[in-house]
Amino acid sequence: MASSGTNARREPHAAKTLAVRSSRRTELINITAEIQELVTESGCSSGVCHIYVPHTTAGVIINEGYDPDVARDVEVALDRMIPLKGDYRHAEGNSDSHIKTALVGTSQSVFIEHGRLALGRWQAIFFCEFDGPRHRDVRVKIVAD
Amino acid sequence: MASSGTNARREPHAAKTLAVRSSRRTELINITAEIQELVTESGCSSGVCHIYVPHTTAGVIINEGYDPDVARDVEVALDRMIPLKGDYRHAEGNSDSHIKTALVGTSQSVFIEHGRLALGRWQAIFFCEFDGPRHRDVRVKIVAD
Amino acid sequence: MASSGTNARREPHAAKTLAVRSSRRTELINITAEIQELVTESGCSSGVCHIYVPHTTAGVIINEGYDPDVARDVEVALDRMIPLKGDYRHAEGNSDSHIKTALVGTSQSVFIEHGRLALGRWQAIFFCEFDGPRHRDVRVKIVAD
Repeated sequence: MASSGTNARREPHAAKTLAVRSSRRTELINITAEIQELVTESGCSSGVCHIYVPHTTAGVIINEGYDPDVARDVEVALDRMIPLKGDYRHAEGNSDSHIKTALVGTSQSVFIEHGRLALGRWQAIFFCEFDGPRHRDVRVKIVAD
Repeated sequence: MASSGTNARREPHAAKTLAVRSSRRTELINITAEIQELVTESGCSSGVCHIYVPHTTAGVIINEGYDPDVARDVEVALDRMIPLKGDYRHAEGNSDSHIKTALVGTSQSVFIEHGRLALGRWQAIFFCEFDGPRHRDVRVKIVAD
Repeated sequence: MASSGTNARREPHAAKTLAVRSSRRTELINITAEIQELVTESGCSSGVCHIYVPHTTAGVIINEGYDPDVARDVEVALDRMIPLKGDYRHAEGNSDSHIKTALVGTSQSVFIEHGRLALGRWQAIFFCEFDGPRHRDVRVKIVAD
């Protein structure tokens, strides 16, 4: 975690950076608890939490966190829809990772209510690794009402 | 509608909940008028309207609202791209619904100008049911400038 | 560019309109520099830049801007996944354009830090034309902290 609670309270709007480490090429990683921690540290009771992935081969989605098979099924479906090999010109061999990122997107916004992320009952926030394993960053900006 | 105009004016930032009822398994439902009503009730003249779906098998998109065949074509295309049956492990039989949700996303943000949603001429806001029929919620947070 | 710097400073929150001209049916156009110019004109040092496409057959994504082959590969992949001809009823012959728009989305939000778009090292903002060539608009709203 890149920020201390003290700094978070002093500059409540400044974006914080969350470090994420992936272990597979395509991997959804539940980062809900880490983002809630940043919300708690900020002292924000009501507002919007903006989550932003500053990479071009990784994204962020909100989906079911209860059954890990859901994340696995999303990974497999994306791998099927956008194969590793195809009509690609980008020389780095990870065009599929860029295309997956374009489809799922690199940001999410979640409301904050009573100091908590106002997620639905089954919702979790997933960092989406599409070209791992790697060290990655997620940026989080909390805008209080 | 979960909120009265009076409450909306007293706590302008608090998210409101809009009830949506779907009648088919995959169904795009135009909710533009209901969201505009919440904007009007809020008294907000200029700002951003954040729309959030707190479910894991439903999303929200912005697309053409004039010809209902567009919504129908989007539904059919998603059903073709992400079939009901496939290499899925999630035991509830609705992995396709979770995958569709991951692709279209669970939130949208629309500017508010002169008290109106600043949509393009042909744009409408569609709740996307991917595992209906069900009773669903859409949450709406209005942040004035 | 639809706005002058003077107006931008007087009404910092008002959305600006950026004109974009596409030259092909499916075309990703890097608009990062034009959006940074609006951020600079606004005088905003820290905040959120909301980018909104008011069309139903065009969207906006954030992806690699360094190697133009990445944008080309995204274009080709979307054309493969959502073909021009298919089980479509919409009479205008551009159902594929609407479906692509539903998948990539019509808005993005990027943090502003020290007066600059806080994009990742390889990230650029791409207007996504799916039914060109056309004259298009992109709307940009800057919300300072």
